[in-house]
Amino acid sequence: MSENFDAVDIIRAKRDQRELSGEQIAWTIDAYTRGVIADEQMAALAMAILLNGMDRREISDWTAAMIASGERMDFSTLSRPTSDKHSTGGVGDKITLPLAPLVAACGVAVPQLSGRGLGHTGGTLDKLEAIPGWQADLSNEDMLAQLEDIGAVICAAGAGLAPADKRLYALRDVTGTVEAIPLIASSIMSKKIAEGTGALVLDVKVGSGAFMKDAEQAGELARTMVGLGTDAGVRTVALLTDMSTPLGLTAGNALEVRESVEVLAGGGPSDVVELTVALAREMLVAAGVEDVDPADALADGRAMDVWRAMISAQGGDPDADLPVARETQQITADADGVLTTLDALQVGVAAWRLGAGRARKEDPVQAGAGVEMHAKPGDTVTAGQPLLTLHTDTPERFARAQESLEGAWEISAASTAHSPAPLIIDRVSAD
Amino acid sequence: MSENFDAVDIIRAKRDQRELSGEQIAWTIDAYTRGVIADEQMAALAMAILLNGMDRREISDWTAAMIASGERMDFSTLSRPTSDKHSTGGVGDKITLPLAPLVAACGVAVPQLSGRGLGHTGGTLDKLEAIPGWQADLSNEDMLAQLEDIGAVICAAGAGLAPADKRLYALRDVTGTVEAIPLIASSIMSKKIAEGTGALVLDVKVGSGAFMKDAEQAGELARTMVGLGTDAGVRTVALLTDMSTPLGLTAGNALEVRESVEVLAGGGPSDVVELTVALAREMLVAAGVEDVDPADALADGRAMDVWRAMISAQGGDPDADLPVARETQQITADADGVLTTLDALQVGVAAWRLGAGRARKEDPVQAGAGVEMHAKPGDTVTAGQPLLTLHTDTPERFARAQESLEGAWEISAASTAHSPAPLIIDRVSAD
Repeated sequence: MSENFDAVDIIRAKRDQRELSGEQIAWTIDAYTRGVIADEQMAALAMAILLNGMDRREISDWTAAMIASGERMDFSTLSRPTSDKHSTGGVGDKITLPLAPLVAACGVAVPQLSGRGLGHTGGTLDKLEAIPGWQADLSNEDMLAQLEDIGAVICAAGAGLAPADKRLYALRDVTGTVEAIPLIASSIMSKKIAEGTGALVLDVKVGSGAFMKDAEQAGELARTMVGLGTDAGVRTVALLTDMSTPLGLTAGNALEVRESVEVLAGGGPSDVVELTVALAREMLVAAGVEDVDPADALADGRAMDVWRAMISAQGGDPDADLPVARETQQITADADGVLTTLDALQVGVAAWRLGAGRARKEDPVQAGAGVEMHAKPGDTVTAGQPLLTLHTDTPERFARAQESLEGAWEISAASTAHSPAPLIIDRVSAD
Repeated sequence: MSENFDAVDIIRAKRDQRELSGEQIAWTIDAYTRGVIADEQMAALAMAILLNGMDRREISDWTAAMIASGERMDFSTLSRPTSDKHSTGGVGDKITLPLAPLVAACGVAVPQLSGRGLGHTGGTLDKLEAIPGWQADLSNEDMLAQLEDIGAVICAAGAGLAPADKRLYALRDVTGTVEAIPLIASSIMSKKIAEGTGALVLDVKVGSGAFMKDAEQAGELARTMVGLGTDAGVRTVALLTDMSTPLGLTAGNALEVRESVEVLAGGGPSDVVELTVALAREMLVAAGVEDVDPADALADGRAMDVWRAMISAQGGDPDADLPVARETQQITADADGVLTTLDALQVGVAAWRLGAGRARKEDPVQAGAGVEMHAKPGDTVTAGQPLLTLHTDTPERFARAQESLEGAWEISAASTAHSPAPLIIDRVSAD
């Protein structure tokens, strides 16, 4: 790789709103990986990218350079097509848990490389680790074997995929540059493309509990990612979905596993079922399977069978009792009427403070901690009825969790017309 | 100092174009000095400041915080008023050398804390170090004593003044954030205010050889600095002066000392004389001395007497032969006519490449290296006459220096009307 570039020239170019060439971008990522570009230089560049943007060609080159920093996986030896899903993260978003076995039950393999949670949004691995015995770490060989045998695997992403992204993400986290759409898009897509999935469905969350607070920004992120996937030969589709209120009735690790199992058993909250089935349909169609209705596989128990096999294959006991928090506290409705809002961010922060999430990467999480909801926007409530139950092993956390819930909901007179926001706001595809 | 701030919150605030409070700014500079804010965080903040700006109150708070990071000097025990000058840097800018003794000869003390050069603009200390025996480093006590006895001192700024600036400047240098007007202004003014001068005249250069390429930007920088000085109780005035062509007929360390001595002897190039006298007048008036004409002190040898005393006091021999480069090369005019342009940046880069400047802080400089000019814009030249003489100890540098001079001048038919740009473009004062 040519060394005829200078980090300061590249920073200045983006600072002054000039386009970076493919060679400049490839050099930048490689030089950062090798330590030739220092963290302070990458931080200045990231801020310039956040404020001045990158065009589609630049973002595509940036993504390709991140992929080139590590290994690529290959699922071409599998006997069935692959389809993956990525959510930009929300409160109570346990969809991966029922979704992966459901899609596998319909004949498409789901290689779900997941992460742990940071901040108010939970991580899929943290949730599954609430299941006694379950292990997140698999070798590439074990992963491939499980995909072939069972059709679904949810495991920790190895350090070999897009390692530049790992370092860059940690840097963005401490430099106020997480929110740059080109960097979010390339971070997500570099890992998904390197992972080698044939099809990808993106769940881009919009609302208070999401990264993207408004639909316009979320749409831009979705279009950028669909473009990147398509350019790289991955059939990619995105749904924009509502995250103004939590998904389902639980936010917290074991609480969400319990709810996911209810969905796999044919029950569960209607919004979780609706989104799981909608995403499953998109994943199947993107993988070329158009004649199977995932709702059937949920109803007849086939998805549950795959779930049990998937959990067992990774050392987990699908029949074990899930951990329960040592202490609970109930919050009751303060009026009669219709619950019109229940803020996702505030519930997410409460669950986090109760111990379900972590503030630093190295912090432990409590398996049983979280928030259980007894009503959702649109439901009629009566004064004094339970609205929320807070769960934690460490009762000194109740006060701070309650603080974060101040003003988190509104109850209006029952006569007021109330139409909850649609769960699926928009769909973005390559055509 | 309160610890209730978070670096990422502060970066985000400036990124999102919000104003930073005085407490946030004070905490930021203090935390950076203590290593609580990491270089990568300060780099992201500096880029956000460069792109989103700071208002006058924020810049004033930022400057105050930089001053608070170190010691302050006190000249109140001196028997005469103090007045200082700062130039934003240009090619052939040796004005400090004749100016400091000239102003001292008129009864005002000049405490000139200077730096070394980096890049294509020379440093005052590098120039004076061409004088055999001359020492840049003085203790605060020796500096005060020399100011009282002789009235002028040019020496290295101690590490104790605004140490946060030193670290921040080095960071900006490698992160493409040097050009932020709030950071330039606060960097310069924090040191000048901490130095304790009663009056300050700023020479803000405009043109190809300057930091600021256009008058609008230079004017903004000048107004910002005059505001900062005034707010801090320093009587501050700025002149905007032309730097599209080099000052005088020399660029290089010993070459510029020689030219400065010519000016002190009553001769020298007219532009150097004009600017020296104009800045001297401003410095005297700012210090409350209105009835003395500095042109007289130049003509009658009083400024030269102070120069000799000032050089001797710091170990230099004012009568010693100055170093001469081992090799020279002449460049001749390629046509008859009027020299209409001679580009400051290109001449500065040539002098730098010949060995007069340094690329890294730790590089040595050649005392004799540089560019001698035999004509200035407006002069009539004939084909074949010497236009420039290049000086260096290392003749392998001639080729790269000549490269940087390609297209550096234009010669037009003598009949073409030509009016050179005025040297003093504008004056900015607090009223």
